[in-house]
Formats: sequence, structure tokens, C-alpha cells
Amino acid sequence: MAIEKIRIARRDFLASIGRAVGGSAMLRTMAAMGIGTSLAGCGSSAASGDTTPSLPPPPPPPPGGIVSPRPGDWPADVGAGKSVVILGGGIAGMTTALEMTRLGYSCTILEATSTSGGRNRTIRGGDVVTEVNSTQTCQFDFDDELYFNPGPARIAHHHEFLLGYCREFGVALETFTNENRAGLMHSPSSMGGQPVISRRIIADTRGHIARLLATAVNQGSLDQELTATDKSNILVMLRQFGDLDSDFGYSGTSRSGFPGQENTGSRQRGQLVDSIELSELITETFWQNRQGLPESLNQQATMLQPVGGMDKIARAFEAEIVDDLITGAEVTEIRKITDGVRIYYNHSGTTTQIEADFCVCSIPASVLRDIPNDFSAGHQSEIENFSYAAAGKIAFQSRRFWEQDHNIYGGISWTNQDITQIWYPNSGFGTQDGVLVGAYIYGGTAGNTFAGQLPQQRIDSAINQGADLHAQMIGEAIHGISVAWSNVPYQLGAWGVSSPMTLLTPDDRIIFAGEHLSILQGWQEGAILSAYYAIDLIVQNT
Amino acid sequence: MAIEKIRIARRDFLASIGRAVGGSAMLRTMAAMGIGTSLAGCGSSAASGDTTPSLPPPPPPPPGGIVSPRPGDWPADVGAGKSVVILGGGIAGMTTALEMTRLGYSCTILEATSTSGGRNRTIRGGDVVTEVNSTQTCQFDFDDELYFNPGPARIAHHHEFLLGYCREFGVALETFTNENRAGLMHSPSSMGGQPVISRRIIADTRGHIARLLATAVNQGSLDQELTATDKSNILVMLRQFGDLDSDFGYSGTSRSGFPGQENTGSRQRGQLVDSIELSELITETFWQNRQGLPESLNQQATMLQPVGGMDKIARAFEAEIVDDLITGAEVTEIRKITDGVRIYYNHSGTTTQIEADFCVCSIPASVLRDIPNDFSAGHQSEIENFSYAAAGKIAFQSRRFWEQDHNIYGGISWTNQDITQIWYPNSGFGTQDGVLVGAYIYGGTAGNTFAGQLPQQRIDSAINQGADLHAQMIGEAIHGISVAWSNVPYQLGAWGVSSPMTLLTPDDRIIFAGEHLSILQGWQEGAILSAYYAIDLIVQNT
Repeated sequence: MAIEKIRIARRDFLASIGRAVGGSAMLRTMAAMGIGTSLAGCGSSAASGDTTPSLPPPPPPPPGGIVSPRPGDWPADVGAGKSVVILGGGIAGMTTALEMTRLGYSCTILEATSTSGGRNRTIRGGDVVTEVNSTQTCQFDFDDELYFNPGPARIAHHHEFLLGYCREFGVALETFTNENRAGLMHSPSSMGGQPVISRRIIADTRGHIARLLATAVNQGSLDQELTATDKSNILVMLRQFGDLDSDFGYSGTSRSGFPGQENTGSRQRGQLVDSIELSELITETFWQNRQGLPESLNQQATMLQPVGGMDKIARAFEAEIVDDLITGAEVTEIRKITDGVRIYYNHSGTTTQIEADFCVCSIPASVLRDIPNDFSAGHQSEIENFSYAAAGKIAFQSRRFWEQDHNIYGGISWTNQDITQIWYPNSGFGTQDGVLVGAYIYGGTAGNTFAGQLPQQRIDSAINQGADLHAQMIGEAIHGISVAWSNVPYQLGAWGVSSPMTLLTPDDRIIFAGEHLSILQGWQEGAILSAYYAIDLIVQNT
Repeated sequence: MAIEKIRIARRDFLASIGRAVGGSAMLRTMAAMGIGTSLAGCGSSAASGDTTPSLPPPPPPPPGGIVSPRPGDWPADVGAGKSVVILGGGIAGMTTALEMTRLGYSCTILEATSTSGGRNRTIRGGDVVTEVNSTQTCQFDFDDELYFNPGPARIAHHHEFLLGYCREFGVALETFTNENRAGLMHSPSSMGGQPVISRRIIADTRGHIARLLATAVNQGSLDQELTATDKSNILVMLRQFGDLDSDFGYSGTSRSGFPGQENTGSRQRGQLVDSIELSELITETFWQNRQGLPESLNQQATMLQPVGGMDKIARAFEAEIVDDLITGAEVTEIRKITDGVRIYYNHSGTTTQIEADFCVCSIPASVLRDIPNDFSAGHQSEIENFSYAAAGKIAFQSRRFWEQDHNIYGGISWTNQDITQIWYPNSGFGTQDGVLVGAYIYGGTAGNTFAGQLPQQRIDSAINQGADLHAQMIGEAIHGISVAWSNVPYQLGAWGVSSPMTLLTPDDRIIFAGEHLSILQGWQEGAILSAYYAIDLIVQNT
């Protein structure tokens, strides 16, 4: 079946759903396919449940929930005799190779760099970071706990395909903390420019909100929508929510800790720390917005990380597909041929070519736009205009002053300066040195500034800004090493932020993949979903 | 100096503070000493800063915060030539021995059971649990990850003395999760009796609160206390707080996840899960109160646990004091002698006696009340009336269905049934089997019911109740093993809940210690604080 026919079949399928169960089901299915929703990016047809009548249907869902087709649900020999060349050996490319090999396809991955994983990367002592205009060598001491994940560094608990691979491959996982109440929040332009312990911001925000709503309820302001029972119940609820006094006032809470020392909980109990005035908490959106991260679906606890570095996942994938992996293979041309593709690549200075029945292209659009190709005008145009986040991080080795001096074990501090976030290591607690992420900048002006700096400038500004939260940064934070993804060859960006349309459709025998095309842009799970989507398209065309 | 004089000196000291810096400082100091505050339990004089004029003053606090005397702040030879007998080899007793040995005292610990640690205990395959009317042998498979902490199981990040010992002893720590948004909340009497994923309860609570307050603000109900700027700012804040619509309505949020499957985040994106009506969220206090735990100071993230079991801490303490530890030594009489104490104890069937200059008695009041003694009437009376929580836990080995089927990695689910909490293991993620805590009951009627049941009855009810949250409990949860602390010999209770008064004062040369006498009842940090308090009293009397 030609891919064009598949697309028509998909439309027929959607129409049939629309007829059968009404518009909302159709919209839901379309959303799952990544079509026409406000949730950016493409869906995975792993989520869609759509199959065309002429194809073997996937097995019925297991009891307990809707489970959409996964590659393993297709017949194991569906790809026998067919070949696929996969461009890019990141998570999307390796997932494609792994799953398509299992379906009988003959796969080859071309990876431009010397290592698989793409942005899944972990930097340790001795590793070299190359950007277009700089080279850094990591000076961290050699220790299992002294590593830096410059790309993806956490996994949501519901990113179940990635977690399923971790389980299958035996990649050990541990907890990653987003919200540590001992972390700091800091803005130069409010709270006197002093860092404030998160627990105070969070507790006082709840306290003031609960107090105000209780006032409104008690004075009858909401009688139009609350019954007498509701009013009585909501007051009980608000007292707990905000830790209000018996008269529904708010004058501080033990949730904020005790004064006299940062993060004390044990020594000093005579007096509560002062509550922060509501007006001060709302002067800047900073104080509220920085509480929002752990509420968002992809950042909610429990978050996870591989023990010993994110690249444990890349290495585990690689072990599965290593026979099909060609590293150091820089793609130089992507050409269509009759019923297939021909890829030219440079390997050790020699131009080589490979032909296959299909191509899955997971090269970032930011890189792909400069590779000569036979793409349709529509695909080429979307590739050229696809935007990427200018995200970057910098890490330092240091005495774990955050643990030893401040009782901070993992998690994140926030500042309204360019460095945005400071991440504390979530493992190796109690050991002497750790790796502190001194800035995590995820785009915007700050991201461009960061990318425009040379490594030493980034070190200087991260230490300078970080010292507003932790004076120990000056003198104790050493061996700074940074990655600005916009400058990294073969990546040229951190993650896609445009909404894909044409790139979700096949370009003859070429199918596009990568996190940038998924509903989870910037996440490894998104890379996997995009791979599943690509696989489904090919299987249906095989 | 006699202890009676010390007590007078303390009063003088308090009076002098009152004169010098006013009443609130005196109240604060008194609070730190555990006197006259509403925060239950005793303080540690480690927090008090009080010294009598005739004693060597502790070193000045380090820059950056008030740090009160720790044992190590006293002169290293202050105890030379003096002896201490310590009753009870739990955390309080071992801390006392460790620190007093460092101060030059000659220490002996009498521990009734065969192992140090007290309620700090970890159960693994082959271990025996003895209660007054039952004996169980743990049937878990032998594996580093298959263990059960029936007593303390988590450490607050600001429990810095305990964490300091972990650092000193090299006890590896990892993150313990209290709040997992993928966990469940369940009440038989609301929400149709169905378990609800925590993320929905939390997100909808925030949404409704924000919506109602925004309504009140928008209609001018709070104009008396909010300026126009405040109103404008608070509306911006509330939109973020509750994820409100652009018109400040609330109709659900992606924070609640997507329908079609538990904890899905990746597959289904077309439609939000329905929001729960406010009236339903407030019908029972259960739904609000169960959100409160991670807000309280001692339960806020980051929480920690030792890698491999809580008893790693007990073993590390033990290694420090093992030369002074006599296990299997059941105290049978506690007698005062001139300028000292004489303790009789039964060891291997033989009654032995030991004399010392001081006694630190960390035997739980629940046990101590039955040991013949020379205590003052006031001390004896408080010991006899001291109440303990009837807490208990039960654990099962099982396939990690919570991870494999529900994407639950660590944390807690809540039910309004007797079992109260289900704890998922916070380590070993992705391995096949894990140990699930099927009930954590911390007192009240349910605690007494639990203690009144034989082990098999506890297993049956935990599986029966747990199946309302996880049907897999039936058939997959095996090797149930339980501890009801009220029934455990030499403990007879989980933790103290009375407010100590007389027990905070020396009884001649006998000083009392234990978590029950601390401002952190039920916490190991409290046991340490109580030890520091006892040490201070003795040092000042030496």
C-alpha cells in the first residue's frame, strides 16, 4: 500500500470514528495522532488506536486500560526483506532501529558523531565538549558520582515507554527531585534581593490564599455559588490548606520553618519565622511561577534519573543495536530513488552511499536544513523554519556545601537572573564533592546570551550570579564546564519548539522522527513516540 | 556542682535572659529547652545556648547562624575519670555513648535485646519478629532491595544531627518520596468509593480554590484589604496557582493527566480528565488532610532514607560504640547509691550489677514503668502515665505491579480504611519484585485493632483493604510480615505522645533520654536531641 493511500485511509478512519461515536471522539483520536490540537507537536500513532482495514489488527488491549499499538504489536516478520536506513543515532533513531529490527527489517543507523545518544549525554572527567567555536575538556575528578547530564536529566514517571526500555535493559533508576522545600528562590528585585527558602514562599502563598478565601466565604461573598454545607466544609478545608489560625487568620506556620538558621527544623522552636506579606509575594510573577514547575504533568513527582548518568540509557540502547550502527558517518546527501532512498555519507574522509527501501530521518531540523536533499518543497520549508530552544547548562565540581551548610539534598533553586536554575545532585548524598548545575537556561534572551559566551565567560557569570544564592560558589565551585546546545555540531539546538505539520507526513519513502515532532518536545519519551509513529507509517506501507 | 544547683542556675539563667533581652527571647530560650511551649515534647539543650557561669563556655557560634552547644563543643577531657551506664541501645543510647566517650567518660550500654538500634530496625528474609503473643519469620527472598523498615523509615533533610552522623559514618542515603502524584487516594465513602490519582485531587483542589478566590476578588468582595494593584497581581497569581482559564474559570487542567489510562502522560492527549466538583472534594476532610503531609515541616521534600535499610544507621552507630555495648542485658533494677547509680541486669540467666557515676536511661517509659527503681515519685508518676502511639506496619513481597502497571515509583497512597497508607519502595526501581508496605497505621483505634490482631489476621485485612486500591494485592502480595510496636517486647509502643515535664529534670544521678522526651517525638533526630540534652546535664554536673 502506498503511503498516500495510507493517508487517505487515515482520513477515512477518522471520518468513520466521527460518524460512529461523535465529534469529540474524533477530535480525541486526531489529537492522539497529533492533528489539530492545541497541545503542540505530533502525536504518536502508538496513541491513536487507528489501523486501516487492510492491515493486520493489533492485539486487543490488555484489561485495565486503552493501550494503543506499539511496534511489538505488529507481526514479528512484517518487515522481512525490507531495509531501512536511519539517520541519526539518538534516542529516536536507536528506538527505530531496535523496534524495526524486531519486526524483521534490516536496519542501518548513520550517526555523525563518534557516539550514539544524541543529546542524551553525560560528561565526566576527561570528556571533551566541542562547540562550533570552542573546545572544553572536563576537569572533574574521576568518580561515579561526578557527572553532568547536559541534555535530558530527568524522566517523568509516566514516560512509560522510556521507563519500559530501562526496565528491559536493566538500567538502574533513582529518584530525581524537582521540588526541594529547602531550595532557594531569589529575585534581585524583590524580598530585598535576598534568597528565600522555598518552604516559606510555598507555605505563605497557601496561607494567604486560604485566608483571603476564608474571609470571602465567611462574609458571604460567595453565597451565590456555595451552599451552607459547602461553606462549612470549605472553611475546614481552607484551615488545613493554609494552616490557618482558629479564626481563619494567617500569621505564619511551622511549615515555613524556624528562624535563626537556614533550614533548621530541630534546634530552634520558640518562634516561627515571619510570614511574608501577600503584597510582596505577588509583586513579581517570579514567586508564583517558580512554584508551578512541580505542578505540571511532566514534572510532577516522582521524577527519575538513571543511576550514574543519563547516558546509561544511550549505552543500553546502543548495546541492542550496535551491529547496525555506523558512527562517524556524516550524512551529506539524502536522495530519493525508485521505491527507496539513497543516502550519501562521509566516513573517515570517504564518501559512501547506502540504499534502502525506507529512510527514517531523525536528524534535527536545525541540522537537516543544510544537507542537500530531494525533500518536497513543503517538507523543506518546514525544516528551514523549524525553531529550536537555545538551552544550555553549566556544571561545577564543588564541596557539597549545599548539603553540609544548608541541608539541601537534591532539587532545584531558582533565581530571576539569567542562570535561572541551580540543580543540586540527587545522588551521592553525604559524599564530599558533587557536581552542581550552576545554570540551566532553557531559551529566550538568556539562552542566546549563554550561547554567545565563550566557556570562561559562562563560568564567570554563573559563579557571579550563583553567589547571590550561595556565597560558596566563589572559591568552591571549580572545573566549570558548559554546553550551549545551539552551538553543538550535529545538534544546533536543544529541542524543537515549532509545531510540526508537513513533517508528520511521509515524503515518499522518507519518514521524519525526533523529539521535535512529538507531543513531548524536549523529552526522550517524545523521541520514542516519534519513532513509534514513524514505524507505524512504514509498517502500513510495507 | 549538684544537679539541683544546676536547675537553680538554669532558672537564674532564664531570668537573666529575661532581664537582658526581654520576654520573647526568654520564651524562645525556654522553648528551645522544652519548657512552656505549645510545641509538644522537650527541647534539646543543644538548642538552648544556656550554660551556667561556673562552667567552661562553649565556643562561639560559627558565622552564619545560631548554633547551640553540641557535645563536641565541650572540652574533650571533661568526663575523664567519670563513668556512665546507659540503659537502652537505641539511637538515643548509642548517641549518648558515642559522644560521652569522646568527652572522656567511661560508658557502658545495657541493651535488652540481641541487637542494638531499638526501633531502628530493618527486616529481611529469615529475620524473626517477636511480639508478646506471636512470632513471625520473614519469608522475603534474599535480595538487597527486599527489606522492610518497620520503625523509622525516612529522615527529614533538616534532621541535621542524624544526617551529620550518616555523613561521618559513611551511611549512603537516597531520596525517600512522600508525595508521588501518581499515588492514589481512596475513601470508601466518597468519589464513588473508587481510588483517585493524587494528581487529580491536588490539581482540582488548587483549581477550585483559585477560581473561588478570583471570583471574590473580581467582584470586589475583598476591596477592604486589597489595593487595586494587589487585586491585579493576585489574579495573575491565581491563574498560575490553579491553572485557571483566561476568564478565571476552572474546568480542569492538564496537571490532572489525561483519561483512558491511569497515569498516562504520553499516549492520550485529546481530552483532559474531568475535574472533580468542589463539593465532592470537601465532603470529607480526608481529601484535604491527606494532601497535608508533604506540607508539614518534618515531611517536606527532600526526605531521605539509607540505601539498603534504616538499620544501616544502627549498624554504623554500633560499630562506633561496640566495645561499650552489652546486648542481651535486661535491666531488672535501677538503684541510686551515694554519688551514683547501681544497675542490676539479667544476662544469660545471671543477675549482674554495674555501678556508675551517672545513668542515662533511654528505656521507653512504657517498659520502664515495670522495672523496680528508686525514682522520685514525680518521675515514677510521669513514667507510669506516659502514653505511646500504637503504630504498626505490614509489608509484603510482590511483583512491582505498582511500577509495571501504574507507573508508581515510590511514595504513598492513602485510604480512609484502617490500613491508612500504602508505601511503595523508593529504590530498586525497575527490578522485578519489591517490598510494599501494605499498611502504615500510626495510632488511634486502627492502631489498637492492628495490635490486637494476630499476624495472619493483619495480612488478611491488609490485602482485603489494599485490594480496593490495587486488585493485584490479591494473589501477588505474598510473605506478609507485620510489626505492631505496642506488642514488641522492650518497646511496648511506637513513640511517646505525652508531654514530658518532670522527666526532663534529673533524678539525682539519673537522666532520662529517648525520642519521647524530645521536641521531635517519633523521630530519630529527637532521640539524638534528647541524648544531647542528657549529655549537657551531666557535663554541667561533672
